[in-house]
Amino acid sequence: MTTGEEGPGNSVYLSERGNSIRLHEGILQEGYIQYGMDRHHDTDNPDGIINMGTSENKLCYDLLHKRLTKPDMLHINPSLLQYSDWRGHAFLREAVAKFLTHYCCSPNPLKADNVVVMNGCGSLFSCIAAVICDPKDAILIPTPFYGVITEDLHLYSDVKLFHVPLDCEADGKDNRPFRLTVGKLEEGLQRAKEEGLTIRGVILMNPHNPLAEIYSLKEMITFLEFAKRNALHAIVDEVYMLTVFDESVTFQSVLSADSLPDPQRTHVMWGMSKDFAMAGIRIGTLYTENRDLVEALAKLGSFHGVPGTTQHQVAQLLQDKEWINEEFLPENRRRLKAACSYMTGELLSMGIPFLDRPATLYVWADLRKYLQESSFEEELSLWKCFLRHKVLLSCGQAFCCSVPGWFRIVFADQQHHLQLGQYQQHSQCLLPVKKDNAGSDNAATVNPKALAENNSSDQLKERDSPVPDTGSLATEDCQASKPAESLDTLIGTLRHQIRSSDWLEKSTPELSAGEDPEIFDVFKVLLQRARK
Amino acid sequence: MTTGEEGPGNSVYLSERGNSIRLHEGILQEGYIQYGMDRHHDTDNPDGIINMGTSENKLCYDLLHKRLTKPDMLHINPSLLQYSDWRGHAFLREAVAKFLTHYCCSPNPLKADNVVVMNGCGSLFSCIAAVICDPKDAILIPTPFYGVITEDLHLYSDVKLFHVPLDCEADGKDNRPFRLTVGKLEEGLQRAKEEGLTIRGVILMNPHNPLAEIYSLKEMITFLEFAKRNALHAIVDEVYMLTVFDESVTFQSVLSADSLPDPQRTHVMWGMSKDFAMAGIRIGTLYTENRDLVEALAKLGSFHGVPGTTQHQVAQLLQDKEWINEEFLPENRRRLKAACSYMTGELLSMGIPFLDRPATLYVWADLRKYLQESSFEEELSLWKCFLRHKVLLSCGQAFCCSVPGWFRIVFADQQHHLQLGQYQQHSQCLLPVKKDNAGSDNAATVNPKALAENNSSDQLKERDSPVPDTGSLATEDCQASKPAESLDTLIGTLRHQIRSSDWLEKSTPELSAGEDPEIFDVFKVLLQRARK
Repeated sequence: MTTGEEGPGNSVYLSERGNSIRLHEGILQEGYIQYGMDRHHDTDNPDGIINMGTSENKLCYDLLHKRLTKPDMLHINPSLLQYSDWRGHAFLREAVAKFLTHYCCSPNPLKADNVVVMNGCGSLFSCIAAVICDPKDAILIPTPFYGVITEDLHLYSDVKLFHVPLDCEADGKDNRPFRLTVGKLEEGLQRAKEEGLTIRGVILMNPHNPLAEIYSLKEMITFLEFAKRNALHAIVDEVYMLTVFDESVTFQSVLSADSLPDPQRTHVMWGMSKDFAMAGIRIGTLYTENRDLVEALAKLGSFHGVPGTTQHQVAQLLQDKEWINEEFLPENRRRLKAACSYMTGELLSMGIPFLDRPATLYVWADLRKYLQESSFEEELSLWKCFLRHKVLLSCGQAFCCSVPGWFRIVFADQQHHLQLGQYQQHSQCLLPVKKDNAGSDNAATVNPKALAENNSSDQLKERDSPVPDTGSLATEDCQASKPAESLDTLIGTLRHQIRSSDWLEKSTPELSAGEDPEIFDVFKVLLQRARK
Repeated sequence: MTTGEEGPGNSVYLSERGNSIRLHEGILQEGYIQYGMDRHHDTDNPDGIINMGTSENKLCYDLLHKRLTKPDMLHINPSLLQYSDWRGHAFLREAVAKFLTHYCCSPNPLKADNVVVMNGCGSLFSCIAAVICDPKDAILIPTPFYGVITEDLHLYSDVKLFHVPLDCEADGKDNRPFRLTVGKLEEGLQRAKEEGLTIRGVILMNPHNPLAEIYSLKEMITFLEFAKRNALHAIVDEVYMLTVFDESVTFQSVLSADSLPDPQRTHVMWGMSKDFAMAGIRIGTLYTENRDLVEALAKLGSFHGVPGTTQHQVAQLLQDKEWINEEFLPENRRRLKAACSYMTGELLSMGIPFLDRPATLYVWADLRKYLQESSFEEELSLWKCFLRHKVLLSCGQAFCCSVPGWFRIVFADQQHHLQLGQYQQHSQCLLPVKKDNAGSDNAATVNPKALAENNSSDQLKERDSPVPDTGSLATEDCQASKPAESLDTLIGTLRHQIRSSDWLEKSTPELSAGEDPEIFDVFKVLLQRARK
């Protein structure tokens, strides 16, 4: 039997599938690997890569350190060291159910039996795909979306994503760019069927990654009704639910609904990675009323188990409402808000449009004016240019965005901001100023409107020009227009202003409360340098 | 499209694959689930199931508690809370490499780059199968074997095991029952090819599960040479390597070889579950020089990640040679030896044959005399009978043993022994005495020979009769012979003697050293009751 071992770059030691897995490389993974080999470090590697591409919240390690080193975290009993229920220990599922009941404002107490805990949401995606889909089946997803889900569904479970592209220009109805509608979902489903695919579900993210969009419960219900009409599973990813940092905005979980359109096909994901800034703790949770799904997931759970000791620690944390409500959440929100405000202020001052949303750890920014032409090759060149200059961002094609030139920029990085400041001396002209290509002055800057309410008509506005009232995405509209600055100015300005940032000054005292002397020392050194 | 949803017991919410996964139930899993629903507990559930089926070492929680609650375990830094290398943090891979270099007696320092750490060896089996095999490919394995590997290879990766049955009777050469030979491997490979299967590798366990057999390095090298001749990957599972409790016996890892026959196709597995009695900590490690394999595994690593905090703790533990060498290993071995000696003494006194091996946490015992007839239905009935009477064992068919009537009995359970003692009053006649069916008095007891050296001719001897010098497995030979005791006597005797066990008295003082007051209290109560 031949096994595809003969292909270029293939290993004779691996199977066809193994070679395919080994050689698979998404842009997000590639960037992260490069970052892994050349991480910026203040003293050890000052010329290393600064990571604004990975969605991690690096603003709250002091708070986490303080809590995670309290004595209740160091608990051992025999059952924690033994094999356990592959859905997670009962005590943890109980804690998760209570936590979600409270923070998702569920009208009725959620049940521990409906909770499955695994080592990350990627594992949950993989498992769910394996049990609701057969190989080669597909799941609908609006684009852009968090690109790693492609691998989560494909690598083990051989399930495809079928893309439902969202327009980057606001449509005529409520002027929201990248607006998700039931019509688009229906249209996508129809297309998939025409292509002969079996669609088993739809993935919905709220708050959205990478858009940071917050959908109202009413909107979500209409999406869930679409799923019900078509007997699709709805996988609702709410891993950013506690990152909403504008007090005037309320996130509404689908679990807050009095009743779900199709509870047996609605599965809600949450985890510690984003809301509690602990991607490294490997905790993803699923809430579903579907017993069959829970039973099937339990069978795969042995591949995705979480150490008993970690389960204990997470349960302690989730049960500590005082810490969550009085310490962590308010401070985290304050810091996220300040960091976002600083970042968006910089983008504004440089005339870079972006979606202004008070949630998540990143902004979705329109760098189309820096592309020589509107192509994904050009976008990739720009991404590589940033990487060459040791700044890792995430470009739109990594999220399967249908229009080139959009980037996700993570702002939730305190130490990184300071490090950027240090880098200022290296700031040089990185790219030639893009030639003005048949554009107007449109789309160069943005109206800094905060999202006042979920259904607001906030939008990506253009300077001196109303948003064009077109529902479709014209190539010309997506072409970058006359750039106000060159790319080196973008980077240089960011670096310069970060160092002298008012935000930095204001934010400092609270940030230095960490108990770990090592962290505190590093912080102090960085701070002094940044203030020079 | 139909999806098999219509089958009996199938869920309309799951795919064909999903239903197959959900409805899949091995005997080991079934037993564990029943145990999970009805665990014995001294006060809360005194009539619950006593677990002698799951291979866990429950003898050393006091030692582990003491070590795992030391201050160095409670360490937090930002990198532990962030995404990391999916092969495991560098500091942990470094610690594993040093640990294996020392305890496997590697002639050269093992390299951290050749180490992959995942959340358990099941995850490693799943990943390795995915990347060295295509769907429907197969891997050779001698039977009996640790049955869960079937699911590890099949559930996600759709890889089969091809069985190479070992004879339960000693063959003519060295009188070792269940003897593994190159000839049997060659024969199995030939059969597999004739059946049109693509065989990609062979799984070798040393010390063996469930046989507890210890293979010499010389033997292992001949197996590895077989693999090399046939271009098969050799997956060498050494997870019980530190459980050898007879000082006169030395375990030799394949990593101690001066050179391996085919280093690019030799992959050595180890983990914390057995040797450090921490199945719940979810740590499996792989050592391989094959860079392609490591790269491919890294791609699947996101599904099998270990929390950074746990990685730190495990690294601390593995680096603490003083604790390992001076405290844990000697005491663990002493307790394992005592527990094994007690268990085998009981089996001997009841005339139950077993493989007498100074390693692992279990004995492989011949309960054929309790079968009404030599069939797997009968074996299952016996297993269910034990379970009805609240004793969970593992029967041979769960390990794909080719002859019915063999059981794996886990002895490494201190608390459990005490609990069994409490149960004595419930001891009743469980089964009718088996009718004498055409057998002699053979095979009713065993000669209690300890394994004096790796190549010793220790064997499963029969009372008043030499081992029959036949290399093949005849059905008649495997029929149970005239039983000396009924099954209720077996259980009753075990329970009675456990309570009055001399071993218990001797072992007590060291066992009560735990720092956790809760554990200590429970222990004291159990002890008092057991001594009544």
